Amino acid sequence: MRALVTSIDTDLPGHVHHVLAGYFAERRAQTDAIGPDFGDAIAALSEFVLGGGKRVRPTFAWWGWRGAGGAADGPTADAVLRALSALELLQASALVHDDLMDSSALRRGAPTVHVAFAARHRAAGLRGEPDRFGLAAAVLLGDIALAWAEDLFLTAGLPAAALARAIPPWQAMRTEMLAGQYIDLLTQAHGDESPEAALRVDRWKTAAYTVERPLHIGAALAGADPAVIAAYRRFGADLGIAFQLRDDLLGVFGDPAVTGKPAGDDLREGKRTLLMALGLRHAAPADADRLRTYLGNPDLTDDDVTHARALLVDAGAVAAVEHRITELTTAALNTLATAPITAPAAERLADLAISATRRDR
Amino acid sequence: MRALVTSIDTDLPGHVHHVLAGYFAERRAQTDAIGPDFGDAIAALSEFVLGGGKRVRPTFAWWGWRGAGGAADGPTADAVLRALSALELLQASALVHDDLMDSSALRRGAPTVHVAFAARHRAAGLRGEPDRFGLAAAVLLGDIALAWAEDLFLTAGLPAAALARAIPPWQAMRTEMLAGQYIDLLTQAHGDESPEAALRVDRWKTAAYTVERPLHIGAALAGADPAVIAAYRRFGADLGIAFQLRDDLLGVFGDPAVTGKPAGDDLREGKRTLLMALGLRHAAPADADRLRTYLGNPDLTDDDVTHARALLVDAGAVAAVEHRITELTTAALNTLATAPITAPAAERLADLAISATRRDR
Repeated sequence: MRALVTSIDTDLPGHVHHVLAGYFAERRAQTDAIGPDFGDAIAALSEFVLGGGKRVRPTFAWWGWRGAGGAADGPTADAVLRALSALELLQASALVHDDLMDSSALRRGAPTVHVAFAARHRAAGLRGEPDRFGLAAAVLLGDIALAWAEDLFLTAGLPAAALARAIPPWQAMRTEMLAGQYIDLLTQAHGDESPEAALRVDRWKTAAYTVERPLHIGAALAGADPAVIAAYRRFGADLGIAFQLRDDLLGVFGDPAVTGKPAGDDLREGKRTLLMALGLRHAAPADADRLRTYLGNPDLTDDDVTHARALLVDAGAVAAVEHRITELTTAALNTLATAPITAPAAERLADLAISATRRDR
Repeated sequence: MRALVTSIDTDLPGHVHHVLAGYFAERRAQTDAIGPDFGDAIAALSEFVLGGGKRVRPTFAWWGWRGAGGAADGPTADAVLRALSALELLQASALVHDDLMDSSALRRGAPTVHVAFAARHRAAGLRGEPDRFGLAAAVLLGDIALAWAEDLFLTAGLPAAALARAIPPWQAMRTEMLAGQYIDLLTQAHGDESPEAALRVDRWKTAAYTVERPLHIGAALAGADPAVIAAYRRFGADLGIAFQLRDDLLGVFGDPAVTGKPAGDDLREGKRTLLMALGLRHAAPADADRLRTYLGNPDLTDDDVTHARALLVDAGAVAAVEHRITELTTAALNTLATAPITAPAAERLADLAISATRRDR
């Protein structure tokens, strides 16, 4: 595989893609030895991993590394890049399993893994129920992505001391992410309409996993001192929640051409977001009841989505969430401004904070 | 937690149980910090992991370690015991996900995880479909078990050089196990009736994962020389298949009081075993057609099971599988007899080979 001519600093997503493509190629010998059927399944996983995503987690982790004094290039920087690319395999695992659990049909504008494998089964006229085949394939491919995330992280060629420092936040992150998904599941099952419940899910499912721990891992790899790690974690917790709140707004108000999902998809899925919690709490009782009938209704029409949007705006929920995003982003930027972080990372992290939370993200 | 007074050599399952119970206790601080709902889910996982299983994989791995010259006790032996106990968390992940994929209702005589969580949902009158809740809980708990297997293996306190040697077979094993499950899924979906397809599944799904790689991991931890590793792998591949063939016989002919599953459960599930492949190939055409109607029929009666058993016996499939078990076990024992393996491991591995494949296992 040809090396990239750009520096990692200037094209992190390109370098992550390059590492991941190379990693799938490296594993070919093993998958080919096991057999062509398995190779086909891995090709589908590879397509999914290489096909999209903004590489948000490796980006935060890389700037966490750089801000704590990590080198921009050289053999250690290359090993760090490899290790951080593993975050995208972990994310692939989370998405494949999450889409299965949510029965989502589309991801990045394409069929989700369980839907795609059910369609393969149907097209080939195989035995058994196509949906059960799709379920099993998604469970297994998500498991493989999780195992390979581990493999890539551990075999990235990191210096032993750096790897030893990074393992605790890496391990904490995995559990927090899975715990966040479980808490999300229970919040929905209990029909918990409180803003507190929504924020608890945001904290574990998104903030810890998307910003806080990736920064922590980058800093740990660089051997950062505790003040830097503490600042990163505070910045990450605030920004991570702001990021999720923006996602929640996009899940209801976003343009399908940009999000890759049907308009108002979060409403159909019945997601218990802070936006919805505030809407239910502050809308007039009749409007709140109406919102409840929309929430989790898979047959929602475009008119219903338009109406739900109007109810959320009228209840002041949209303005309140926008306000919260601004508050959290400001707090994150203040933390960053006073933290002992080396340039240019401080600047890049500030840019990331702004771009990850803005309306036209 | 009280230390055990027995030696590891004399009570490996007891020591593995002790390590696993201690590990769940160690993780309590993190799970409590995340919240009580998550703690409840982990308690269910802990019950599942501690509730049963013969600790087959850690047992082979331990004797792999001992046979390659690893110490019976002391700090390194304790770290090895901890690392090998992680195989049981990996196995818990595989079982939880496998039961979900197979829609199995019972495991070790108790409800499977997806069934138990669906029942919780139903009993508490929560929102949404109980079965979808059960599915999601099983996906997440299986993921957590997989992640924690990794965590325990890496933080077992192994000397760095030993860990570095053991990581390649550990990583290969995880992929082989998941690949074996995928090949199994495809074999069933294609209705592949060939003995070759059944043996391919046995090789990857069982032999590599149950015997060959655990022995390899134990040997790698001990820094075994290539001749020992090669002998272990040959022994493990043969014995692992023999072990699966015995399991296949028990899946059709086993006593529910012993197996913890309904009589003839493999027939209802439509498992494509070597036993079934030979039955379909060698039965008279009308009998083979009859067998095909039984295979994968969830409504099979006890009389149907009795009839299917008779057809498999009459076709000579049972005798052929018994013969194959004997051949493979003999080959495994011959490999062992000529391998440069230290006593008492050679004796214990021979005992294991015999007990894992005998009729009244």
